[in-house]
Parts: sequence; structure tokens; C-alpha cells
Amino acid sequence: MVQTIDPWGNQEVKVDNAFLKQFGLQKFSETNQKQFKNHFFERNLMICHRDFDKFYAALQQKKRAVQLTGIASSGPLHLGHKVDLDFFLFIRSLGAESHLGICDIDAYVSRPDKKLDSMKKAKEIAVNNTAHALALGINKKEIYVQSQKPPRYYEFAFELSKKMTENTFRAIYGHLDLGKLSANFLQYADILHYQLKEFGGECPTLTGIGIEQDPHARASRDLVRRISYKMFLPSFAYFQHQGGLKEGTKMSASEPHTAIFLDDSLESAKQKIQRAFSGGRESLEKHRKLGGIPEIDKSYEILRFHHPDSKLVEHVYTEYKTGKMLTSELKKITIDFLTDFLSKHQAKVKKNLDTAEKIVYKK
Amino acid sequence: MVQTIDPWGNQEVKVDNAFLKQFGLQKFSETNQKQFKNHFFERNLMICHRDFDKFYAALQQKKRAVQLTGIASSGPLHLGHKVDLDFFLFIRSLGAESHLGICDIDAYVSRPDKKLDSMKKAKEIAVNNTAHALALGINKKEIYVQSQKPPRYYEFAFELSKKMTENTFRAIYGHLDLGKLSANFLQYADILHYQLKEFGGECPTLTGIGIEQDPHARASRDLVRRISYKMFLPSFAYFQHQGGLKEGTKMSASEPHTAIFLDDSLESAKQKIQRAFSGGRESLEKHRKLGGIPEIDKSYEILRFHHPDSKLVEHVYTEYKTGKMLTSELKKITIDFLTDFLSKHQAKVKKNLDTAEKIVYKK
Repeated sequence: MVQTIDPWGNQEVKVDNAFLKQFGLQKFSETNQKQFKNHFFERNLMICHRDFDKFYAALQQKKRAVQLTGIASSGPLHLGHKVDLDFFLFIRSLGAESHLGICDIDAYVSRPDKKLDSMKKAKEIAVNNTAHALALGINKKEIYVQSQKPPRYYEFAFELSKKMTENTFRAIYGHLDLGKLSANFLQYADILHYQLKEFGGECPTLTGIGIEQDPHARASRDLVRRISYKMFLPSFAYFQHQGGLKEGTKMSASEPHTAIFLDDSLESAKQKIQRAFSGGRESLEKHRKLGGIPEIDKSYEILRFHHPDSKLVEHVYTEYKTGKMLTSELKKITIDFLTDFLSKHQAKVKKNLDTAEKIVYKK
Repeated sequence: MVQTIDPWGNQEVKVDNAFLKQFGLQKFSETNQKQFKNHFFERNLMICHRDFDKFYAALQQKKRAVQLTGIASSGPLHLGHKVDLDFFLFIRSLGAESHLGICDIDAYVSRPDKKLDSMKKAKEIAVNNTAHALALGINKKEIYVQSQKPPRYYEFAFELSKKMTENTFRAIYGHLDLGKLSANFLQYADILHYQLKEFGGECPTLTGIGIEQDPHARASRDLVRRISYKMFLPSFAYFQHQGGLKEGTKMSASEPHTAIFLDDSLESAKQKIQRAFSGGRESLEKHRKLGGIPEIDKSYEILRFHHPDSKLVEHVYTEYKTGKMLTSELKKITIDFLTDFLSKHQAKVKKNLDTAEKIVYKK
């Protein structure tokens, strides 16, 4: 049976060679894996890509190469979103022209009313999300809000709607929800519009996404083959998603107890780590003897995804795995790291709220 | 069996009491019929309405009442389009705040590529259409082009897409074509957006349309019941469509020989009238004896829809009906009237081309 992917669902996607083959995805080359001094590559967080090489070749030749990432402003940001933005900052550091879309229209239109019941609310959330993005180091000129684009952007989204049939949509997504459908055309426009002459013209682009977002990637590539504008097929890089704090879950804003939010108080963050699923053994004795299981430990996962120091993370892994480090010690390291990060980050967020308001409301 | 209406089709719609009842339409009151000194009412060109009374009451109380009409810029304008704009000018004369949308995105997105294959083309046609509208007496401040609206307009179109289900769409239109679907959300936004606070706020609105456009009317009213903004249900007035030049056809840009275009040369217009279907009898003798049939005569129809002098039109009707006027004489009156109109109109169009370009390309 063919595996389908639901970009709005909450299931983990299994990625194996059969999966890669089925969807035409490529693994990163060994060269890539070695050349990038970045935790995404050092810690095996990258899964696969589509046409990353074309994008990277343009960067190496100092040609224009655009990266575009979007955040749907449907709720507060959690550590999982930080992964997206960290990847954004990494690609920017390679020299890419970088744009971060705060997707307020998409958020409102694609979420049920009980989750997000007005554009007004989506914009308030957009202010919050934008302030966090600024605090993480995205420049204000790199951020746009979907509801504040020039008319050409919307025109293009409507143009794209002419080029996709109901059958294509059903084949890719397995359903036809009119709100999600129209939000999708905005997503495709986000990914593709920087190749329009009004936004800089044809060039390779990259979008970093989780593997469950691949249907959008395939749809936007399919559209490039149908429209009359000459464009590069957009490239995509797929990274692992950070799991939730409970065993086997995805970090999701819909289930607050499974996620650490960038707005969480230090006390709340601390408590969440203390309660998080651990890879420790049932007794001290057994732990010392058998060692912990960092692969399933949620505190360790936070370090793996977020701690800047790869050597420290490796050290923790070994110590925990061999039973030298106890779960309480691992949790303490994670709590210290995380509360330090959150405290500094939240101070920056405060300073950036005014700028964020100006971006969202075009004051 | 329930009669369905296809707004994109080319069939005449039969309007009888059963039809009015089925779709919840109302006839104009006798008061309305008598009070308006205008050929639409004097010559029985109005078919029915939805909530015209609420709109007219606001006008009488000198409250804000908005009329909105749209033209899809998919081809050159013909006499049928002039009917829409004449109605627009009539409603404006009653004191309504009036907006004419030149719908370039709608035109491109809802027409197949073989009819309209790029936004560039749709905008070129929009310039032509706009120049004609200006020449007919629409003010430049009353005209907007869909591709040059403020972002709030597009945002609203996307908001509306959240409020319609696939089933509602299928029930109203009988199909689900993604291009037409997205174009429709622009149409609904056109009809409704002047009730948003950013565009003036809640007030009665009127759109004059042909009866085959009623599905759009029902859909936009249905949406008002679902969205969270407080709005009046939009009102609609339905007028008769001028027929084509062949027997029983609708005047359609898709079939150029059935229509007189506002860009037609005087010679071409003259020839079209000469070849148009007539209500004359097969011999002079029979015509004198039985009289002509103005009801099916295409030259007479042009006078009925377009000649400013109701008395003259009535006189022609009687003379032709009683056989005193021959088809050649009727055609001569129509040709003289039409070529005089086209010649003056086309001179005005030329003068307005620059202004039209400025409106379409926001120069």
C-alpha cells in the first residue's frame, strides 16, 4: 500500500529507503555531511532533500539563491519551531537571500475556528511569533507577514489556483477542504514568488521543512511544471522534528503539555523537563549497570536539537549511555541550559515587540 | 426536477413564477416600476430582485448605500456589457456610492488558457475595458482593478474561503473547478468588502446582474450568514440580457458574429445589423398586411436596450408591428443610431486610454 502523508496530522512519518524512493527524495552526500560545521549535520538531524545540490551550487558560485521559510501564526512558538528558525539561520550563514514568512492568513484559513477564530487573533499571534523570530536573530528586513504583501503576491497565488486540478489536489493530500485548499495556494506562492521578476527573478530556492510537509513541496514543484513563468523547481531540505516530552509524541502546540514553549516561565519549563519521559532505568543499580537510553530520553533530545556545543552533547550522550550520568544529572544539565536560554531569549523578545508590531500592522 | 443555473454557460434562463419562488426572488413593486424614469423600468427590462427595498430605503434616507458591479476583463466589451454599465449609471444617479471592479484576476483564473492565457493579457484587456467604462461616464475614482487592491481585500477573499464547504459549492454550482472556485472567492470579496470597516463599514449594497449570475448572489448571501463580521445581506437587481444577433442567442464575446462590440468599426457594425435576424415577413405584401414582429427583431432589440428616447422606441415598435415600417427602415434607424453612438463613444475611449493605463498599472 502506498504511504500517504498528512501535513496537518500529528503522526510521526517513518523514513526509510523505500519511502525515499517512493517520493523521489535524495540523501545528503557525504561531502555535505562533512563540510557543514553545523549541528544539523553533525548530529544527524538532516533526513534528506530535493535538489539541494542546485541550490548549494548557486551559493558557491555567488549567484542569487533564496531561502524561504514560513511559520503559520496559529499559536505560541515551541522548541520545535526554533529548529526551523535555527535551520534558517544556518542556511543564511551560507550566503542565501533569506525570507521568513509569518503566515497569518494561512493560519486563520487552515485552522478550524475553535482553534483560531479570527484574522485579528492570527495577527496578534503573528506579533508574538515575529518578536520571537527577531529575538532568535532573524533580521526585520527578512520577515514578511502574509497579510501585508504587495498585490502581485496575491495575484500570483490566484494564478497558481488555475494550474492545479481537483484530482491533483486529492492525489497529493487525500482530501479537499476549501479553506486548506486556498491556504495552500498562499503557501505555494510563498515558496515560489521570489522567482517572479517583481521579486527578484528566477533563481534556485530552498525551504527547510519537516518530512510531513513534503506534500506541499511536491505540489509546489508540480505547479512550476505547469505555470508559464520560467522558474527553477524549488529545492527542499528535510530535517528531523523534535519529539514531544511524552514518549513517542511530536512536539505540538495543540498539546501544550508535550511541548516547551519559548514563552514558558522558567519554573514551568523546569517542571516540564522534570516530568519529561526519560531513558533512565528503573533503579539506580540497573542504571549504573546497563546505562541509560539517551535515544529515547527527552531531556537529551533537547540538548541534541538545541545545545550549541556538539562536544558537550556527545559527552552527555556517552556518560548517560554508559550509566555514569544519572537521569537527575542529565535533567539538571538540560534545565540549566534551557532556563538560561529562555531567560535571555525572553528578554530579547520584550525588546523586539515594538518592531514586531510595526511589521505585522505596517505602522 | 430542480432547475440549476450555470453562470458560465451560454443558455437562456427561463424566468417564470415557479423559478422566482424556487430561488427566493422577488418581483419589483408597482411603485418601483412607476417611480423610476428610466428605460430599464419603462421598457420592462428588469426581471426581479433580492432585497432591493432595503437598499433603496437606505438611499431614500440618505444613508450610505453601495453599489458594486464587476466586469471580467476576458475580452472586448459588447453592447451586452453596456447594459450592465447603463444600469450602474442609473443606480449611481439615485445617489449610491458606486464601485466598478475590473476583474482581471477573476478573468484569467476562471477562463481556460485557450481563451486567456496570462495575467499580462488580462491586464491589457483591463485597460481596454476601463477606457470604455470611462467613456460611458463612469468616474475614474469609481473604478478599481482586482490586481491593484489593498492587501485587506485579498485577505478577506481568503477568509471567505474558510466559510464555504465543498458541499455548499457543489450544491450551488454543480461542479468544483479549482480555478473558478478561487475566482469566486474574489467575486464574493468584490460584492462584500465595502462592508468591512476598512472600506467604509456595514451598509446595504446592490449589484445589478443577469439572472444567470444568481448562483454568485446566493453564495455571497450564504457567506454573510457564516462570517463573523456584521454585514447586510447584499441586494441584487436582475435585468434582462440583450440577445445575440442571431435568432434566440445570447450576446456573447465567445461568438463574435452574435455581438456588436464597442470597438467595432462603423462599417462592421452596419454590416452586422444588416445581417441580423429580423422580425419582418417574407414578402413586402405580407409585411404590410400582417405587420412585423418587433419582439424577435434584433435591430429593434438594440433600440429597446440602448436608445435613450423611450417615445421613439415605442413609436418604432408600433409602426413596425402594424406593418407601416419595413425591416429596411427599422434597420436604417438602428444603424444610424448605433454608428452615431459608436463614433462618439470611440472618440471618448481614445481620450481615456491614458487614464485607463494609469488605473490598471497604478502608474
